[in-house]
Amino acid sequence: MANRIESALERQFMLAEGPHAPPRLLAAMRHAVFPGGARIRPQLCLAVAKACSEDAPALSDAAATAIELLHCASLAHDDMPCFDDADLRRGRPTVHKAWGEPLALLAGDALIVMAFEALGRGADGCSPAQLARLPALLALVARCTGATDGIVGGQAWECEPRVDLSRYQQAKTGALFVASTCAGALAAGQPAAPWARLGECLGEAYQVADDIRDVLGDAVLLGKPVGQDAQHGRPSAAADLGLVGALQHFQGLMQAAVDSVPDCPSRDSLCRLVRSESERLVPQVACTRLLEEAGMVLASSHAGASSASALRGVAG
Amino acid sequence: MANRIESALERQFMLAEGPHAPPRLLAAMRHAVFPGGARIRPQLCLAVAKACSEDAPALSDAAATAIELLHCASLAHDDMPCFDDADLRRGRPTVHKAWGEPLALLAGDALIVMAFEALGRGADGCSPAQLARLPALLALVARCTGATDGIVGGQAWECEPRVDLSRYQQAKTGALFVASTCAGALAAGQPAAPWARLGECLGEAYQVADDIRDVLGDAVLLGKPVGQDAQHGRPSAAADLGLVGALQHFQGLMQAAVDSVPDCPSRDSLCRLVRSESERLVPQVACTRLLEEAGMVLASSHAGASSASALRGVAG
Repeated sequence: MANRIESALERQFMLAEGPHAPPRLLAAMRHAVFPGGARIRPQLCLAVAKACSEDAPALSDAAATAIELLHCASLAHDDMPCFDDADLRRGRPTVHKAWGEPLALLAGDALIVMAFEALGRGADGCSPAQLARLPALLALVARCTGATDGIVGGQAWECEPRVDLSRYQQAKTGALFVASTCAGALAAGQPAAPWARLGECLGEAYQVADDIRDVLGDAVLLGKPVGQDAQHGRPSAAADLGLVGALQHFQGLMQAAVDSVPDCPSRDSLCRLVRSESERLVPQVACTRLLEEAGMVLASSHAGASSASALRGVAG
Repeated sequence: MANRIESALERQFMLAEGPHAPPRLLAAMRHAVFPGGARIRPQLCLAVAKACSEDAPALSDAAATAIELLHCASLAHDDMPCFDDADLRRGRPTVHKAWGEPLALLAGDALIVMAFEALGRGADGCSPAQLARLPALLALVARCTGATDGIVGGQAWECEPRVDLSRYQQAKTGALFVASTCAGALAAGQPAAPWARLGECLGEAYQVADDIRDVLGDAVLLGKPVGQDAQHGRPSAAADLGLVGALQHFQGLMQAAVDSVPDCPSRDSLCRLVRSESERLVPQVACTRLLEEAGMVLASSHAGASSASALRGVAG
């Protein structure tokens, strides 16, 4: 599946490249997209499409590609000086550090456009019945990216004087996970609703894991600076619930994600994907050790530091 | 037609607004879109749709709305400090001056997303035959906005060490005019090709007029700072051809635009739209006076200054 995603992304870039494209812009766009992170969103999209007996693989590919491009665009813009002012992302310079602010801004814009271009192209050669899925796919992907319930809106809550933490996280992180699972179903011509819960659980778990890793991780593991939430005064589950509370919440969400997967022939492989993602985000052995150590909190004031070392040791 | 465009844009915003949207982001988006400029691109789109006997007005509205939203998004981003660092646009503070850089960046992103959302929504309730136009419309609008031939690519040429002037202008300004005329035809189920030339001529004329006005206009007339091309070392027809050459080029392009309009029942009203746009951009009386004065260049070294005063007097 990983190959299928990289090929689909690469195809999209091949179509954009040529003697007439501004070469530095294309390079900045590639920098934002390749090499990728875990590509968990397009993996989810394709896994759900498969679970729904996909009959239009070009449309599933397009949905997966669009969602990953939008994710990469949002990272390029969020890293810019007027937001996180981050130097590193995935262990490499951020887009604006490598290519300058103007090209980072334009690369993000161009990737948003490319995402919707991919969706439209995915419908080429579809039957009329398959083509009829396109408006709903467009609406879903736009909603999960846009101003009201999407990642752009989520980021914009950082500019508001009053923030609803749950809405902020749901829009900033959760929305694109929901889009991932629901788009897989829609691309396969199935109803999206049964797959929304899986996206919601994973999105919230991802946010909680990110908060935990922002406290515990190290720059080598994450490939980006840690302590950003505290530094920027951002809402954080680790700050709200404490580290142990956040870990328990994470485990509960991952179990809820597994439980939410509808009965289907490929239920087992989908659950394996969820579990491997859980392990990637917060390794189980470190989680267990940290929760065991929590019993020692009453006996030792060093428990927090000790747990942090344990997780770093395993995860690194 | 102006009412139809404002209503379509307003409807799009009404759908985005609500108790759950970040209010400052929505306000920044509105600031970028209302009150508008001449709305010439959506006017062209709807005029061509009408000339092509439109049978799916919601789809024409969607195309016109998408194109105007993308235009407004590009202005908001181009005005930002890492590009033009402009304080004024249409006589008011630019989006980042009014709402800050983070919200100007996000407002532009959200408007790009909203544009494609509008396109998808325009297909709601369409017949299968009308729905079949959606992929081509998406491809057209994305191409005219994206990295290779679109406005984002055009802006990116400013970040390249070597610039092809014609490609820069075609992508930065011309592409969205071509999209406007061609989208009108596609939304009405007609071939786009016969309408491309009209968009090309208008796009190039608009660019030339902008260069002329950048030299001659005043801040009150344009609602934005003048002399930006020279200040930023940007390519300019007025710099390349001289002021008189640029005016002659402008007139030739506007005539070619009129000549390009295919034979159709509403040819006259389309030609009227082109002529009124020409008059709005560079008033004919000033143009004539300036070209007449050019005969005096040999006799007087003050001809340039005199022509400039004439155009300012009439246009203001």
